Amino acid sequence: MKRYIVELIGTFWLIFTGCGSSIITVAFPEFGISYVGVALAFGFSILTIYYAVGGVLGCHLNPAVTIGAIAAKRTGINEGIKYIAFQLLGATLGAGILYLIVTDNEFMEIGSFASNGFGKHSPLGFGVIACFITEFIMTFFFVFIFLRVTLKTKNSNLSGLIIGLSLTLIHLVSIPITNTSVNPARSTSQAIFTDLIWPLEQLWLFWLAPLSGGIIAGLVYRKFNTV
Amino acid sequence: MKRYIVELIGTFWLIFTGCGSSIITVAFPEFGISYVGVALAFGFSILTIYYAVGGVLGCHLNPAVTIGAIAAKRTGINEGIKYIAFQLLGATLGAGILYLIVTDNEFMEIGSFASNGFGKHSPLGFGVIACFITEFIMTFFFVFIFLRVTLKTKNSNLSGLIIGLSLTLIHLVSIPITNTSVNPARSTSQAIFTDLIWPLEQLWLFWLAPLSGGIIAGLVYRKFNTV
Amino acid sequence: MKRYIVELIGTFWLIFTGCGSSIITVAFPEFGISYVGVALAFGFSILTIYYAVGGVLGCHLNPAVTIGAIAAKRTGINEGIKYIAFQLLGATLGAGILYLIVTDNEFMEIGSFASNGFGKHSPLGFGVIACFITEFIMTFFFVFIFLRVTLKTKNSNLSGLIIGLSLTLIHLVSIPITNTSVNPARSTSQAIFTDLIWPLEQLWLFWLAPLSGGIIAGLVYRKFNTV
Amino acid sequence: MKRYIVELIGTFWLIFTGCGSSIITVAFPEFGISYVGVALAFGFSILTIYYAVGGVLGCHLNPAVTIGAIAAKRTGINEGIKYIAFQLLGATLGAGILYLIVTDNEFMEIGSFASNGFGKHSPLGFGVIACFITEFIMTFFFVFIFLRVTLKTKNSNLSGLIIGLSLTLIHLVSIPITNTSVNPARSTSQAIFTDLIWPLEQLWLFWLAPLSGGIIAGLVYRKFNTV
Repeated sequence: MKRYIVELIGTFWLIFTGCGSSIITVAFPEFGISYVGVALAFGFSILTIYYAVGGVLGCHLNPAVTIGAIAAKRTGINEGIKYIAFQLLGATLGAGILYLIVTDNEFMEIGSFASNGFGKHSPLGFGVIACFITEFIMTFFFVFIFLRVTLKTKNSNLSGLIIGLSLTLIHLVSIPITNTSVNPARSTSQAIFTDLIWPLEQLWLFWLAPLSGGIIAGLVYRKFNTV
Repeated sequence: MKRYIVELIGTFWLIFTGCGSSIITVAFPEFGISYVGVALAFGFSILTIYYAVGGVLGCHLNPAVTIGAIAAKRTGINEGIKYIAFQLLGATLGAGILYLIVTDNEFMEIGSFASNGFGKHSPLGFGVIACFITEFIMTFFFVFIFLRVTLKTKNSNLSGLIIGLSLTLIHLVSIPITNTSVNPARSTSQAIFTDLIWPLEQLWLFWLAPLSGGIIAGLVYRKFNTV
Repeated sequence: MKRYIVELIGTFWLIFTGCGSSIITVAFPEFGISYVGVALAFGFSILTIYYAVGGVLGCHLNPAVTIGAIAAKRTGINEGIKYIAFQLLGATLGAGILYLIVTDNEFMEIGSFASNGFGKHSPLGFGVIACFITEFIMTFFFVFIFLRVTLKTKNSNLSGLIIGLSLTLIHLVSIPITNTSVNPARSTSQAIFTDLIWPLEQLWLFWLAPLSGGIIAGLVYRKFNTV
Repeated sequence: MKRYIVELIGTFWLIFTGCGSSIITVAFPEFGISYVGVALAFGFSILTIYYAVGGVLGCHLNPAVTIGAIAAKRTGINEGIKYIAFQLLGATLGAGILYLIVTDNEFMEIGSFASNGFGKHSPLGFGVIACFITEFIMTFFFVFIFLRVTLKTKNSNLSGLIIGLSLTLIHLVSIPITNTSVNPARSTSQAIFTDLIWPLEQLWLFWLAPLSGGIIAGLVYRKFNTV
């Protein structure tokens, strides 16, 4: 049971802080948090909660990581499905609290929340192919790095730091492309609360690309370990 | 006695550097320190002093952490009260030195110093409910993370780093909401030295929400350890 | 074989994320990633992949590091040549994927990609002497630090962190001077894909200066160890 | 002999990268390195070189640290004087190379280089009292933290990280006040190469305040250890 609570609390924290900083940055660009701040926020959210409740337990906080761990035969399928369910629950709760906070500000509108998009909804107008490739490759590396650094006992006390800085790095590059998902739970939580339709219409890409990247990462990880 | 000196020195350093960077950023936005810099300053202040004087000793630097440690039965009530007294003293000294520095600059006014506020005194106009929720949740996670990473011996040499980056993360999200307190000593020290009335009038929230969050964190921490 | 795959994967990741963040920053400066973000991206790319696949293996990701390791007698010449070949292959693949992504955005042009240049092609107009000195000194220190921190067993679990932050530091200083190379594979990968001629014409400096710096670093490293 | 080479190389690196990023930031503010980048550069310079050549050896890179170590009875007076001489030599060499680089750019002028100043030469107009207090307190904490984290064996492998982030923190707060010295070798190296007179005229403060702070830190450190 404890490991499911970890997924719930951790994904809540990831969405509340990561998407929270993103939403406020977009609404008030002159305030100067900047996208470097958003990238650091996403990274530090997983970093901090990993050391608080992760480690021995999963602390995946991301269906793409869980499916990668299943492909790597490090997490069972039944267990993984429950992980994903609690991730979605935690993400939805995090987004719900953000919704409450934003609606208590008369100068803000929900708009697209921190939704992910491609084509005309890409922050800087990247097409669907560019967005799919980016999400696929970024998730592949994120999950591959996650699986590797949580395996190697030598570096185990730096695992949370490395995973967190990977997520920061990914955001530094891909916020302008897709607003950065690499996490279907993150994308879904935002699409639910926005007033707009397109985040739900485009949600398929932010499940398909990250999950594909995660599965391939799990398989490459197994192969790499045996070379 | 040494542990009280730690609270005094550490809280001084937290206020002097964290609030110091904030005050200068607000006064001279064109200088480009930016709120990312303020968030890093708060985080690095606790990080650095933690490794210098904390560890075995408390190094709470924050009444919400101390009350959380009491709720978690890791700090005694009498000891905790003295901790809080020395935190308030250190914070006041830090704010006092900042006051001296700011008044030796003819281009600056004390204004609201680095006070925390809600409603019309929220930096970006968030209402009292949004501000209370934010301070409560942020303090809950800060204290929960603090208690967890200072317990687990496995990660003990990273504890200061994790605590510091938690505080940076919290600032990246909530500076625009409340100017970020999560620490009643921090809020009080600023309200004392500002020329304005509202920081004192709104101070109740920055005691109530952080202390509530800290107490709940201490209780959840105990429960979590036993699951 | 595994060590060559490490060079391939790692250099791909370095170019894809480091040069990727740089290209988008130049194209859309108003988006606010800023050169601090680019500097962090380069550093975090080597940091993250180092812990995932490096450590025991080389994870040089840079011909200047490899030639320095040869000069330090820590890598054999035949092995080193293969390292460099796989680094060039990985860098070219990374740049190729970036090319695909950029061409799927109608608002962007390839322009100079993330090419390195001097004189009139230095981002801020630094002359060839300034650029050569900068690249030489920066690579010298990068390779010297790399060799030292991967030797000393005491700090071995921080090696990737230190190497990554060295690269961040170097970018913070020298992006305005040469757009920062310190890595011939990085420069070559960009010169191949840009539509312009000058990146190829100026490529000699971004082989000569980094390789010279790397060799001297390897020799100084050996001397330093024996003092 | 090796320990003096460490001071020479390390102080060179500190000035070359820290002051280098500062000089370029001031000359081209629109380029967006920002003072957060300068603060990170100073911190990462000492962090990286500390792990490469410090640790067992001194790696003070700063006369205020050396005089603090003497006051703490951790460094001998004769040895300390040689440390300071090599720090001044390394800093001068670093500033000299920066001078060469800047003069190979027709769009830049040497101006005040990265000199420290107070009163009308404080970046944001802070008076001499504010500047003295700031330099004194900042150096006190820097040296106190330095001495503490290099003593405690438990955290020894994080020492360089903590020292580096302390220097970043100090810059985040005090660049607008004095352009941040806390290091007489740093201030002296800039005053020598600038065309202006005032950096030499004001240099006394950037010896007096840091050295006073360093000495007091050494004494407090000894007292703190015995409480």
